[in-house]
Amino acid sequence: MEESFVPFRGIKNDIHNRLHCYKQDWSGGFKAGFRILAPTTYIFFASAIPVISFGEQLERSTEGVLTAVQTLASTAVCGIIHSIIGGQPLLILGVAEPTVIMYTFMFNFAKQRSDLGRELFLAWTGWVCVWTAALLFLLAILGACSIINRFTRLAGELFGMLIAMLFMQQAIKGLVDEFRIPKREDTSLPAFMSSWRFANGMFALVLSFGLLLTALKSRKARSWRYGSGSLRSLIADYGVPLMVLVWTAVSYIPSKNVPEGIPRRLFSPNPWSPGAYENWTVIKDMLNVPILYILGAFIPATMIAVLYYFDHSVASQLAQQSEFNLRKPPSFHYDLLLLGFLTLMCGLLGIPPSNGVIPQSPMHTKSLATLKHQLLRNRLVATARESIQKNSNLAQLYGNMQEAYQQMQTPLIYQEPSNRGLKELKESTVQLASSMGSFDAPVDETVFDVEKEIDDLLPIEVKEQRLSNLLQSTMVGGCVAAMPALRMIPTSVLWGYFAFMAIESLPGNQFWERILLLFTAQGRRYKVLEKYHATFVETVPFKTIAMFTLFQTTYLLLCFGITWVPIAGVLFPLLIMLLVPVRQYVLPKFFKGAHLQDLDAADYEEAPAVPFNIPPEGELGSRLSFADGGEILDGMITRSRGEIKHTCSPRVRSSSSTPAKDLKLQSPRLSEKAYSPRVSELRGVRTPQLHHGRGPYSPKTGEVGASHLGVSPHSSTSNQ
Amino acid sequence: MEESFVPFRGIKNDIHNRLHCYKQDWSGGFKAGFRILAPTTYIFFASAIPVISFGEQLERSTEGVLTAVQTLASTAVCGIIHSIIGGQPLLILGVAEPTVIMYTFMFNFAKQRSDLGRELFLAWTGWVCVWTAALLFLLAILGACSIINRFTRLAGELFGMLIAMLFMQQAIKGLVDEFRIPKREDTSLPAFMSSWRFANGMFALVLSFGLLLTALKSRKARSWRYGSGSLRSLIADYGVPLMVLVWTAVSYIPSKNVPEGIPRRLFSPNPWSPGAYENWTVIKDMLNVPILYILGAFIPATMIAVLYYFDHSVASQLAQQSEFNLRKPPSFHYDLLLLGFLTLMCGLLGIPPSNGVIPQSPMHTKSLATLKHQLLRNRLVATARESIQKNSNLAQLYGNMQEAYQQMQTPLIYQEPSNRGLKELKESTVQLASSMGSFDAPVDETVFDVEKEIDDLLPIEVKEQRLSNLLQSTMVGGCVAAMPALRMIPTSVLWGYFAFMAIESLPGNQFWERILLLFTAQGRRYKVLEKYHATFVETVPFKTIAMFTLFQTTYLLLCFGITWVPIAGVLFPLLIMLLVPVRQYVLPKFFKGAHLQDLDAADYEEAPAVPFNIPPEGELGSRLSFADGGEILDGMITRSRGEIKHTCSPRVRSSSSTPAKDLKLQSPRLSEKAYSPRVSELRGVRTPQLHHGRGPYSPKTGEVGASHLGVSPHSSTSNQ
Repeated sequence: MEESFVPFRGIKNDIHNRLHCYKQDWSGGFKAGFRILAPTTYIFFASAIPVISFGEQLERSTEGVLTAVQTLASTAVCGIIHSIIGGQPLLILGVAEPTVIMYTFMFNFAKQRSDLGRELFLAWTGWVCVWTAALLFLLAILGACSIINRFTRLAGELFGMLIAMLFMQQAIKGLVDEFRIPKREDTSLPAFMSSWRFANGMFALVLSFGLLLTALKSRKARSWRYGSGSLRSLIADYGVPLMVLVWTAVSYIPSKNVPEGIPRRLFSPNPWSPGAYENWTVIKDMLNVPILYILGAFIPATMIAVLYYFDHSVASQLAQQSEFNLRKPPSFHYDLLLLGFLTLMCGLLGIPPSNGVIPQSPMHTKSLATLKHQLLRNRLVATARESIQKNSNLAQLYGNMQEAYQQMQTPLIYQEPSNRGLKELKESTVQLASSMGSFDAPVDETVFDVEKEIDDLLPIEVKEQRLSNLLQSTMVGGCVAAMPALRMIPTSVLWGYFAFMAIESLPGNQFWERILLLFTAQGRRYKVLEKYHATFVETVPFKTIAMFTLFQTTYLLLCFGITWVPIAGVLFPLLIMLLVPVRQYVLPKFFKGAHLQDLDAADYEEAPAVPFNIPPEGELGSRLSFADGGEILDGMITRSRGEIKHTCSPRVRSSSSTPAKDLKLQSPRLSEKAYSPRVSELRGVRTPQLHHGRGPYSPKTGEVGASHLGVSPHSSTSNQ
Repeated sequence: MEESFVPFRGIKNDIHNRLHCYKQDWSGGFKAGFRILAPTTYIFFASAIPVISFGEQLERSTEGVLTAVQTLASTAVCGIIHSIIGGQPLLILGVAEPTVIMYTFMFNFAKQRSDLGRELFLAWTGWVCVWTAALLFLLAILGACSIINRFTRLAGELFGMLIAMLFMQQAIKGLVDEFRIPKREDTSLPAFMSSWRFANGMFALVLSFGLLLTALKSRKARSWRYGSGSLRSLIADYGVPLMVLVWTAVSYIPSKNVPEGIPRRLFSPNPWSPGAYENWTVIKDMLNVPILYILGAFIPATMIAVLYYFDHSVASQLAQQSEFNLRKPPSFHYDLLLLGFLTLMCGLLGIPPSNGVIPQSPMHTKSLATLKHQLLRNRLVATARESIQKNSNLAQLYGNMQEAYQQMQTPLIYQEPSNRGLKELKESTVQLASSMGSFDAPVDETVFDVEKEIDDLLPIEVKEQRLSNLLQSTMVGGCVAAMPALRMIPTSVLWGYFAFMAIESLPGNQFWERILLLFTAQGRRYKVLEKYHATFVETVPFKTIAMFTLFQTTYLLLCFGITWVPIAGVLFPLLIMLLVPVRQYVLPKFFKGAHLQDLDAADYEEAPAVPFNIPPEGELGSRLSFADGGEILDGMITRSRGEIKHTCSPRVRSSSSTPAKDLKLQSPRLSEKAYSPRVSELRGVRTPQLHHGRGPYSPKTGEVGASHLGVSPHSSTSNQ
C-alpha cells in the first residue's frame, strides 16, 4: 500500500476493491458446505469465552453496571454488522482486554464525581464514544492506515506476544483466586470454609490443566495414528469446544459430596433479569451530563482512539500476513471508518465497544486455511483417483488435476489468476515417473501416491468468505440467551482456556521462535534448519539474532510492566506505537540493514530484486531450497493444526534437481513484488548461493560460512 | 539352550560360564566411573518405591506383623547376595506383588486357626519357605530351566503386560482411596472431614498426574532441543528421582493452610521402633508349630515354588532379550538354586522372600544399554575428532575408530570377538567421501559429521556388570535407615510412580505394539513401517495379526480377572504356565507355522536358515533393509530413553547399495545361530525378496503383495 494522505482516497479504494469480491464472499462461504462449521465453532469459542470472562471482570469493577450480557451483546452486534458490511471479513471483532481496562478507569473516575456518579457513568461513556468515533472518522478519512506498512513484524508480533502474556496472566491469576474468597461474596457460606476453599483450588487445578492439556492434544488429532481419518478430523476441528463440554461434565461428577459453589462457575445475570436492560436507554440521559464532562470526555477518547487505531489495524494485519497467500484485498481505512460508526452505536446503547481482536483474528485465518486445504485436497484426490481409474498416463493426470485446481480458484480481478500452483506437482511426478521408466504407461498409486503427493504440494490458501464470521457473531449473540447453560461452565475451565489461547497464539510468531532459538542448545540448532524456518536463521549471525531478540524482549517486558501501573497502564498502546519510529530511525544504527531486513522486513526499505543464482544440477543447495519450497506450504497450517510431516519428500531424495526459479511465480500474491529477501523468506526459499559456501566447521563460534548455527551444510541435509 | 534334564548339569554349566566373566563383571563396572550412578539411581527408585508400597499393603493385611521395613530388608539382603554371588547380575530381585498376595492369603488362614494364630504366623511361613526352597532346589538340580525356550514371547510379554496392568490398577486404586477414609484410621481427625477428604483427593490427583507427566517428559530429555547436552543428559538420567523430590516438595507448599495428614504420606514404623525386630527371631518359634501345619505348609509352598520358578526365569529372560545383544551367558539354573537358598534364609528370618521382578529387570538392562552407548560414543567421538585434527584421511580415521572400538569390547571366550561392528560406518563414510570426491583428502567435519555418524551406527550393547545391582540393593537397604525421610513422600506421588512404571514397561513389548497396531487407522499404518518394527508387520497378514492379538488379549484379561478372585487368584501363574502347552500344541492348529514364527518365534521350531537373496544394486529393497539395520541398533534404547532419530541416515539416501549380507556377522551374539526369520526379525533385517513384490495398491483390503498394511513400497520409503 502506498502512503497517501489524500482525504477519502483510502476509503474509496477499499470499498472499490472489496465490492468486487462481495458476491464471491458469500457464494464461497456457502459452497464450503457444512465444513464451514469447523472454523466457525472454533472461533466462536475463542471469541465468546474471553468476552464472557471480561464481562465478569467488568461486573466486579463497575459494581454490576456492565456485565457479560453487555459485552456479549456488543461483540455479537458489532461482529454481525462487520461481517456483513465490513471490509475484511477475516477480522474478528470483540470486546477486548484494553477496553475493559479503560472502562474500569473511567468508572473509578465517574464514581468519585458527585455530579456524575454511578448513575450517569454510562451516559458519560456515551460521550466518550462519540468523541472516539469522531477521531476514528478523522483518522480513516485522512488515510492514517496507509502507514500500516511501518507497523513491521517487530511491533505486530510484540503486540501479539503481549496479548498472549495478558491471557496467560489472567489464567494464572484466575487459578490463584480459586484458592481465595472472591470479593463481595458472603464469607460465611460453607464453600468458603478454608477446607472447601483449598478443595476448590485443587479441583480448579485439575479442571484447568485437564482442559489445557486435552485441548492442546486434540488440536494435534490430525497427526494421530489411531482412529479413522474422519474421527481424527472431527476431533481436530471440534476438540476444543468438546473439551470444554467434557470438563464441564467432569466438574459435576463430585456434585453429591461437595457444597454448592464447588467448583465455582460463571456468574452473570440472565438477560431477562430486572435491571439488565437499564443501559439500553442511556441515550436519554446523555443530555443530563454536565457540559464540562462532555468536553472532558475528549481526553479518554483520544486514548481509546489511538488504542483502537492500532489494535484494529494490527489485528487486521496479522489476519492477513503474507504467509497466508490471501487473494482478496485488505481494507484498513474503510474498516476503521466502520469501527467509528460501531463505537458510536455502542456508546449510544450504553455497551462497551468492540474492536478487532488478537489472537482470534489470526486464529480465524489459520482455521480457514485448513478448511481451504481440506477442500482443495479432497477435490484433487478425487480427480487423481478418477484419472487413475481411467488409466490415464501422468501427463493426463496432471492435466486433469490442473483443471480441477483452476476451478477451485477464486476468480478475481485483483490478482492475475494463477496457473502455476501445481507446477511443482508436475515436476515431481514427471521426475518420479521417468526414474521408474513409466512415463507413458498408465499411472497407478504405487507410482503416484495420491494423498501424500497432493498433501505435500498444495499451497497455503485461505477460504476467504463472510459466512464464518457472520455465523460466529450470531452464535455469540445466542450466548446471551444461553446464559443459563453458560453458567454451568466452571471458572477454572475458563482459566485453562485462557492458557490454551495464549499457547495457541505462539507458533508462527517469529519473535517467539527466536526466543526459543536462544534457548536451543548449539548442537541441536540444526534441528531448526530441518523444519520450516525463516531466512534469518541462515543469513543473520546468531549473535545478531540474540541481540535483536533481547532488545525486543526488554521492550515487551516494559510494555507488560506498564499494564500493571494503575492508570498509566492504558498508555501501553502508545509504547507499542513508539516502536514504529524506533524501528525506523534507531534500530538501523545498531543493526546492519541486510540483517534488519531478514529479521524484520519493512516494505518501505525493501531491497531491489536479487537475481537467483541457479545452482548446477545435483547441487545440495537447490535440493535444499526445493525441499523447503514444498515444506513451507504446509508450514503455517501444520504447525498449529497438528499435521506434522517429515521433510523427506521424494523430491529431496531424487538426485536430479529442479531449478529454484520455478518457485518464483508459484504464488500469485507474491509475483507482483520484487524478488527481495523478504519474499524469499516468506516463501521459505533460501538464497541458494549460501549453500555453496561450505566454510570449515567451527564448533566454538558456530558462525563460519553459512553455518551460523554451528551446523555444516552436510548435516543439515543428512538429517532431514 | 538345549533341553537336558541330567541332574546338576545346568547348574554346573551356569557356574562354569559365569565364572569366566566374574572378574570382568566387577572391573567393567568400576571402569564405567561415576556414570554407573545413572542406571543405579534409576533402578533403585524403580525397585524401592514399589517395595515400600507393597510393605504398606502387607502391613494393613497382616495387622502390622510385616511392614515396609521387612520388605525393604528382604529386597536389600537378597539383592546384595544375588549381585555378588548370583549368576545373571542384570536380574533385579525384590518382594513382588504375587508374594504379597500369597502372604495375605496365608495370614488370613493362620489367623483363623487357634493353634497357629497371629503369633505363629511367621513361624509357619518359615516352614512354607523351607518347603519352597526344597522344591526350588529340586527344580534347579533337575534342569527345569532348560525348558525356558518354551516360554516364548507370547507368555513372557503377556506376563509383562499383566504386571503392567497390576501396577496401573494399584495406581488407580490408590488414587481413588485418597478420596476415602483409610481403614483402621481415626475418622474423627480433621483430615477425614468430608471437605478435607475431597481436598486430599484433588491434591492427590494434582500430585500423581504431575509426577507421571513430568517423569515421562524427563525420560525424553535427551531429544529436547533446549538446554545444554549435559543438562539434558542429567535430566534424562536422574529426572525421575528428581521429580519424586520435586513433587514431594510441592506437597509441602500448602502445609500452613491444611491440617496434618493432607496430603497423606507414607506410613511405616521406624526400624528402631519397639516391636520392629520381633520377626528376626522367628526361627526360635518354628518348632512350636504343630506338625500338621508343618506338613500342610507344603501346599502353599508348591504354589510359591511354581510362581517363583516362572517369575524368576521370565524376569531373567526379559532382562536378556536378544535385542540387547548381550555378550555374557545366562544362568537360569544356578540362579534358581540361589533363589532357593535366599527363600530359605528369608523364611528363617521371618521376612517375605524376594524373587526376580518385572518390569525392573528389563528396565535395568535398558538403562545399562544406554550407559554403554554413551561410553562407546564418547570414546569414538573423541577418537574421530583426534584423527581429524591430525589431518587423517578417511581410511586412517576408520582404522583409529575400529581400534578404539575393539579396546572397548568385553574380551570373553564365550563369544568370538567382533571386528565387524564398525563395518557399516566404514561403508557409509567411504561412500560419502567418494561421492564428494575427497577420499584421500584429510577429513573434516563437513564431510564426516562425527557425532551424528557415530550415533547412527553404534550397535546396541549393554554394560554388563555387577556394580549397579550391588549399589542399588545397598541403597534399598539404606532406605530402612532413611525411613523418616521416606515418610515425607506423599502416597499420591507413589501412585503416579506406579502409573509411570506401568507405562515405561510398555514400549518394546510386541504384544503392546500389536494392540496399538489394531487401533491404527489403515491409512496411517505406513507410519509403523517408517519406524523400527518387527518382521511380522510385513510378513503376516493383518487379519492374522489381529486374530493372534485378540487371542492373547482375551487370555490376558482372563489372567487379570483371576487375580480378582479371592483365593484362586494365586493360581494365575499356573494360567500363564498353561500358555506353554497351548502355544506348542493348540496354536499351530489355528495359525500357519510361518506366521506363528514371526509373531512368536520359538527356538524349538525354528526354521532352517533362509539364504539371503542379495538384491541388485540400487534396488529399493536393499536400501530399506539396510536402513533398518542401522535403525534397529538405536531402536531399543531410543524408544524408551527418548532419543528419537529420523530414519533418513545418509546411507538411505545414497543410491549405491551395500548388500544385506554384511549385516549377518555384525553382532557376535547372533552369529552362532542359524539365520532364521526369528533372527532377522530381531535384527530388523527384513527378508529382502519381499520388497520386490510390488503388488498393485489396494486401499480396500490393504493386503496385496507386500503391502499388508495398505501401503505401497514406494510410500514406505518416500515417507522416511
